[in-house]
Amino acid sequence: MEKPAITDLKLHPILNTRWSPRSFTTQVPDKETLKRIFEAARWAPSSSNEQPWRFIVGIKGDKTWDNVFETLVDFNQKWARLAPVLAISIGKKMSSKSNRPNKSFTYDVGQSLAYITFQAMQEDIYVHQMGGLDTEKAAELFNVPEDYQVITAFAMGYKGEPELLEDNFEEMEKAKRQRIELKEILFEGEFGNTSAIVS
Amino acid sequence: MEKPAITDLKLHPILNTRWSPRSFTTQVPDKETLKRIFEAARWAPSSSNEQPWRFIVGIKGDKTWDNVFETLVDFNQKWARLAPVLAISIGKKMSSKSNRPNKSFTYDVGQSLAYITFQAMQEDIYVHQMGGLDTEKAAELFNVPEDYQVITAFAMGYKGEPELLEDNFEEMEKAKRQRIELKEILFEGEFGNTSAIVS
Repeated sequence: MEKPAITDLKLHPILNTRWSPRSFTTQVPDKETLKRIFEAARWAPSSSNEQPWRFIVGIKGDKTWDNVFETLVDFNQKWARLAPVLAISIGKKMSSKSNRPNKSFTYDVGQSLAYITFQAMQEDIYVHQMGGLDTEKAAELFNVPEDYQVITAFAMGYKGEPELLEDNFEEMEKAKRQRIELKEILFEGEFGNTSAIVS
Repeated sequence: MEKPAITDLKLHPILNTRWSPRSFTTQVPDKETLKRIFEAARWAPSSSNEQPWRFIVGIKGDKTWDNVFETLVDFNQKWARLAPVLAISIGKKMSSKSNRPNKSFTYDVGQSLAYITFQAMQEDIYVHQMGGLDTEKAAELFNVPEDYQVITAFAMGYKGEPELLEDNFEEMEKAKRQRIELKEILFEGEFGNTSAIVS
């Protein structure tokens, strides 16, 4: 199934094609492919080059996968059971340089996930991020130090058919994509005043 | 000047080429180009599809550009004076659906900036994000509502020669890129235990 961005504008094919499926085939991406995907995150930009991103990655059948799965809320477990890769993102809360809080750490980790997603798409692999997890449980299961914070979980794999999912998820998988209009997010002069770029 | 990622792995050309220059030519990207760049952000993923990202965009010579520039710390003003586009990113703090705090809003806005960057690179435009700004001043100058938060500023434009910059910035522009090793950010089993993907 394809589910491209609904736009008349010519976006880069990766951005136009990308979406967050819930159905995956059983095929496990090979190690070299996964290495390239995380190398992409490594080269993301970050505030003062702090690189606050860390990842714990599980492959279906291993203990890490089971533990990531355990932390997911019921809703996510119902579909993520299909994902050949389950991982969590973690952020370093303090600056490595100044020993003060790094106020950009979640922003930068979010950005690194986009780099993971772009390189994954290049490898024909789709990413589905999840905020629905028990981050405290994850911190405990994975021995995450106090000065780090578990942020999201994410599933990766080759896209599967919607029919692999339970009924209500199959419907969601096929539902139309929705976004706020560009004129409501792009401003000039002051907040809420639509930019001339949009017209 | 080119400044590619220092890696033996085959990254997507955009990810390999991307970096955050401080020197820009005077050429202003046209409106259609800028529209595509922000349309890319619009199609980024977000927690519960909240789409918490908002942008205020200034073009050199207009009042918005001047106001963004005003909010920048001295260090950033010294180079950002060259940028034909200066913008700020803003996040919606509360969920639109539940009226509770959206704990993913900075993560999602960070992610949207990666989409902006990726589409910009496709248009031969480079992005340089900045945490060094007075966010309270920006909120005041742009009338940003209480339930929104100014997060970063960013410069965009076509890459210029390093010689356009003041001496110390020219050196920084030419400095070697640095990243933590992959084995120090990619784990399995528990935090700190290097993933077999790396070996």
